Amino acid sequence: MLALVLDQGVHLVSDYPEPTRLPGEALLQVRLSGICDTDLQLARGYMKFRGVLGHEFVADVLAADNPQWIGKRVVGDINAGCGDCEDCRYYGGHHCAKRTVLGIDGRDGVFAERFCLPERCLVGVPHSVDDERAVFAEPLAAAIHVLDAVAELTQQVTLSGYGKCEPPREALVIGDGKLGLLVAMVLAVAGMSVTQIGHHPRKLQVLGRRGIPTLLEEQLGDTSRRFPLVVEASGSHTGFARALSLVAPRGTLVQKSTVTGTTQAELSTLVVNEIRLLGSRCGNLGHAMAWLEQGRVDPRDLIDGRFPLEQAEHAFAQAATRGVSKILLAPVGAE
Amino acid sequence: MLALVLDQGVHLVSDYPEPTRLPGEALLQVRLSGICDTDLQLARGYMKFRGVLGHEFVADVLAADNPQWIGKRVVGDINAGCGDCEDCRYYGGHHCAKRTVLGIDGRDGVFAERFCLPERCLVGVPHSVDDERAVFAEPLAAAIHVLDAVAELTQQVTLSGYGKCEPPREALVIGDGKLGLLVAMVLAVAGMSVTQIGHHPRKLQVLGRRGIPTLLEEQLGDTSRRFPLVVEASGSHTGFARALSLVAPRGTLVQKSTVTGTTQAELSTLVVNEIRLLGSRCGNLGHAMAWLEQGRVDPRDLIDGRFPLEQAEHAFAQAATRGVSKILLAPVGAE
Repeated sequence: MLALVLDQGVHLVSDYPEPTRLPGEALLQVRLSGICDTDLQLARGYMKFRGVLGHEFVADVLAADNPQWIGKRVVGDINAGCGDCEDCRYYGGHHCAKRTVLGIDGRDGVFAERFCLPERCLVGVPHSVDDERAVFAEPLAAAIHVLDAVAELTQQVTLSGYGKCEPPREALVIGDGKLGLLVAMVLAVAGMSVTQIGHHPRKLQVLGRRGIPTLLEEQLGDTSRRFPLVVEASGSHTGFARALSLVAPRGTLVQKSTVTGTTQAELSTLVVNEIRLLGSRCGNLGHAMAWLEQGRVDPRDLIDGRFPLEQAEHAFAQAATRGVSKILLAPVGAE
Repeated sequence: MLALVLDQGVHLVSDYPEPTRLPGEALLQVRLSGICDTDLQLARGYMKFRGVLGHEFVADVLAADNPQWIGKRVVGDINAGCGDCEDCRYYGGHHCAKRTVLGIDGRDGVFAERFCLPERCLVGVPHSVDDERAVFAEPLAAAIHVLDAVAELTQQVTLSGYGKCEPPREALVIGDGKLGLLVAMVLAVAGMSVTQIGHHPRKLQVLGRRGIPTLLEEQLGDTSRRFPLVVEASGSHTGFARALSLVAPRGTLVQKSTVTGTTQAELSTLVVNEIRLLGSRCGNLGHAMAWLEQGRVDPRDLIDGRFPLEQAEHAFAQAATRGVSKILLAPVGAE
């Protein structure tokens, strides 16, 4: 089958072996997939991954152990845990020590005609959510996961003034990549006053249309303004230092970017200001699908291009171009 | 008066000006003071501080606006906030934007005969707690403050499995400096199973005597063991990377060390494992005094030497010697 493979570089392969469905897994036919910044990072060596790239998808179930899935249109959690450990049984398996991760770690991804994923990872897509919305379920879930960090803040009780028992009303989002824009949308929908900083006026317009104030990096200058919640989604090493300097004392910094290599961090700032730094990765796909069905977020204006899988190499290069937002891939005949 | 002053280097000065007591402040006569690793860091340029060093003390109140303080034996919070902002009114003033910090930032410290501190910072010392215990109130409060971070963990409720709603039962403390040893004692008293790693067999004996298991850094090897709670108190840039690699997924890393300059951090580990990194600085002096009065912690076997203030330069050099624990300073005639 046709597949975009990362090996020594990223190549379209026409005779990639068909996936083998294991017990408990579903065989899925891709309808639409999305290129994520993590795919670009992987191509640069992150995780040392080798295989078919891609983890954002909407697909049809071709085969499964449970016949109720067959023919269903689905999205899915990218973390394929063992299903048996404490983390899988109680916490969704995102931290299962034996997990593979779709198109990222030990498991072929979705920039292909077909792929496999455990059935327990699947979430059905309702008729009212079209493919171009559903394909955003995975990054939207990651964006909504920032609210989990905020939820902690509202519920904590402290012994001696460590943190405050109120949710932050103001938030700053750093980075106008696809994930950063989704995070800003989610926080605004959740009722927070959000400011977004980025580099690309065209991307920031997506938020301007929604009434979310945006600033170009250079407009921020050396403001003394500090925010109780800062989300770092710039995908750069410099974004972290920037973020750390913009968090208020006792504030929270949610780190979404995964960047290859080491970052220079002024950790004494973290200690002196008693900042809470939360690493945040994947969210709950069911929650994301509920948000899409309820129309709380409509991410379609993030789409900057749609290519057939045959043009995947070109599409991948497009996605890596500065200022370009979401690029989608569709196997021919998928719609 | 006699004072140990940081200027271009650390020097004992015999004619340092007497402190001027401002409204709301107490004038304090030092009975005993302790040298902290932060003092050593300050001498290396941390915070760009200039003035009298020292912030761990027990002292007698010579003068105060409130006559009830006069003649009392006290310890005190080192954060001298404005007293008026939201942080001062509700949260103890540790993050007051206008604060000075005793012997650290904008306020002369306690390696002198006399110094001043706002009355609201003072905590009385009961008769049953002698000077050699009371002088540990400040670092002990900082150690107990780690429990505030743990208290958060026990009380949180999460939306989608971000963190677990149970207190960690196992903890690892990195660094066998004075603060690291106090943190290990506090966590053990709080009921946790604590492991301590360090470099100095003689220092680790302090914990061995209390039944707390200790490991030399080299004994840990490349263990695959991970801990739900890790406290970084090594005071080194390398300690942080070590700590990050030893935290379990969804675990908590409490960063106590303040180190000058930037640390190399593999932030993708923080994100992929969704680690919660909490900067933690000063604690509540009242809580620390209660622990000392109740005998929950007796820190006196951390004392490695006691010198008159006249020998402060020598004492400071002693404190900077590898393997040496707490060094105390007493003005002549102080007892």
